[in-house]
Amino acid sequence: MKVVVYRGARDLGIEDREPAPPGPGEVRIDVAYTGICGTDLHIYHGDMDARVGDSAIIGHEMSGRVAAVGADVDGMTVGQPVTVMPTRPCGQCAACRRGTSHICHAMNFLGIDSPGAMQSSWNVPAELVLPLPEDLPLDHAALVEPVAVAVHDVRRGKVSADDQVVVVGGGPVGVLIATVAQSRGARVLLVEPDPYRREVAGGVGIEAVDPGSTDVVALVGDRTDGAGADIAFEVSGAAAGVTTAVDVLTTRGRLVMVAIHPRPREVNLHRFFWRELELLGARLYQRDDMEEAIRLVASGAIPARQLISRVEPIDAAAAAFTALEGGGVMKVLLDLQGGNK
Amino acid sequence: MKVVVYRGARDLGIEDREPAPPGPGEVRIDVAYTGICGTDLHIYHGDMDARVGDSAIIGHEMSGRVAAVGADVDGMTVGQPVTVMPTRPCGQCAACRRGTSHICHAMNFLGIDSPGAMQSSWNVPAELVLPLPEDLPLDHAALVEPVAVAVHDVRRGKVSADDQVVVVGGGPVGVLIATVAQSRGARVLLVEPDPYRREVAGGVGIEAVDPGSTDVVALVGDRTDGAGADIAFEVSGAAAGVTTAVDVLTTRGRLVMVAIHPRPREVNLHRFFWRELELLGARLYQRDDMEEAIRLVASGAIPARQLISRVEPIDAAAAAFTALEGGGVMKVLLDLQGGNK
Repeated sequence: MKVVVYRGARDLGIEDREPAPPGPGEVRIDVAYTGICGTDLHIYHGDMDARVGDSAIIGHEMSGRVAAVGADVDGMTVGQPVTVMPTRPCGQCAACRRGTSHICHAMNFLGIDSPGAMQSSWNVPAELVLPLPEDLPLDHAALVEPVAVAVHDVRRGKVSADDQVVVVGGGPVGVLIATVAQSRGARVLLVEPDPYRREVAGGVGIEAVDPGSTDVVALVGDRTDGAGADIAFEVSGAAAGVTTAVDVLTTRGRLVMVAIHPRPREVNLHRFFWRELELLGARLYQRDDMEEAIRLVASGAIPARQLISRVEPIDAAAAAFTALEGGGVMKVLLDLQGGNK
Repeated sequence: MKVVVYRGARDLGIEDREPAPPGPGEVRIDVAYTGICGTDLHIYHGDMDARVGDSAIIGHEMSGRVAAVGADVDGMTVGQPVTVMPTRPCGQCAACRRGTSHICHAMNFLGIDSPGAMQSSWNVPAELVLPLPEDLPLDHAALVEPVAVAVHDVRRGKVSADDQVVVVGGGPVGVLIATVAQSRGARVLLVEPDPYRREVAGGVGIEAVDPGSTDVVALVGDRTDGAGADIAFEVSGAAAGVTTAVDVLTTRGRLVMVAIHPRPREVNLHRFFWRELELLGARLYQRDDMEEAIRLVASGAIPARQLISRVEPIDAAAAAFTALEGGGVMKVLLDLQGGNK
């Protein structure tokens, strides 16, 4: 089997290793595709060394087939297509006790806190393995995890048919949120300064505007009889994105905070008071979000083919990360299918 | 009848006028007591001249008795004790169309946008007049409107029995929120730097701590097995209050924004994301909040007697405003009962 090893900032090694048999309660998966997400890029830049260490196998967006089934595992068969929900909550912290174990304070996140999916053969606790439909292409299935993020965000925002939705930020998660919201019947406007990202969004039927040349608040006002948007998603991580997302909302509108803002941001709290706005943090996903994401990808509601910009073989992992840094791509996958030959 | 006329910053005149009979659909009320609220103080300081003009009758927290009933008004009898819901929505704006007419964008607020309750005889649209129980003392009843604010805020925060609640800011609205939340069975901690306000709060059974000498986040952590507060109310209007209210919350905790923050504030949006926190703006009240406030004041759940620091006759209106500016008082009322003699 082949393994991509993160050894430190901008240092990825490809190693040959012997696959270990799955332990009790585990499933061994021959990984087909692993997506690279923004968190993986942060790790690659060395920003998360304190958490991942200096010899880590990262990656948590994946698809594959069951290669072996450990003791005490029911309902899994060799050859079955699967994906993995990469979150193992502790079950004991305040978040878990509150029924929100998906944002456990002591989460073991596969691909960050323990070995992830950038290896061609991966042993995973069976309770995290979700079956996929046999006819779902495995490259498309590698998008299930980010789609689950979008499903969770849209659910937090309580998006309904005919709602006016504004998504601020058109990277992969922003475009997926826009797509999921549109599949719910919402009217969606995506706000994104990068022309390439706007073009990709337009290509999958999402209307995208440039905040540099469009008065987003006025445009949404025009379309809502002066009222404003029902729901805004802040996915840009930028201070200006927060301002747009607040200013665009109608009375009792909801702002879903999806992006990571490493520094505090200035927020117009008076507008929250005056219009009784709501701000809702949204992070990761719950099991039913993953299951819904599988249904959405399998049904074709998610334009997976158009969102996958590049697929690189495992030996070109470093090139794949570099491509993602350079922009001009949406989703980049590693193909690990050659790793077990 | 006597009228307190706001003529400009720090300039209140007392005038004798002839009472006008109520028009069709109106009720004339002999005002008993009118409370002075923070908004009235802002007007007195000249901060709202653009909205109120230079010859305004302000005041919107009141009690009184029906003195005359205009044409086309049913169900009101002379002598009946009443209070007034001082908000007249337009019925046509985006907020009204959305079913949130209580925060109408074109609100006619009695006592700000049209004549208010600092007159001993007041003509008011009958649909805004709410009957009071006969045995409710009218000075206590002047607190119904601010109690309705607190009822609305507590409802926005979905406070339930055994919730850990933190109220940041111990002025009249903060103490009322604490009292209403406690009447719902919540465990309440009030955070207030002013010793007088803490003493008043303590006197009505609210535990109050000084944020200058108490680590509020640590204290609430100790009391919640490390989890944090379920709901925080930001009533201080201070930047530090926002920080405390965010930092004190448990996973999926709710921050109700009650205070007016005239400037944008730095907010730790990462914590909103990480813990899936919620921020909820809360403003004014709906009719059922007013009705619930009447029940709470009448039942004795609101310690009205202890919260009324001073009652001044109408001729001493300016002194009443000055007292409120100086601090060391909680609620100050004007007694207008002598105005019609």
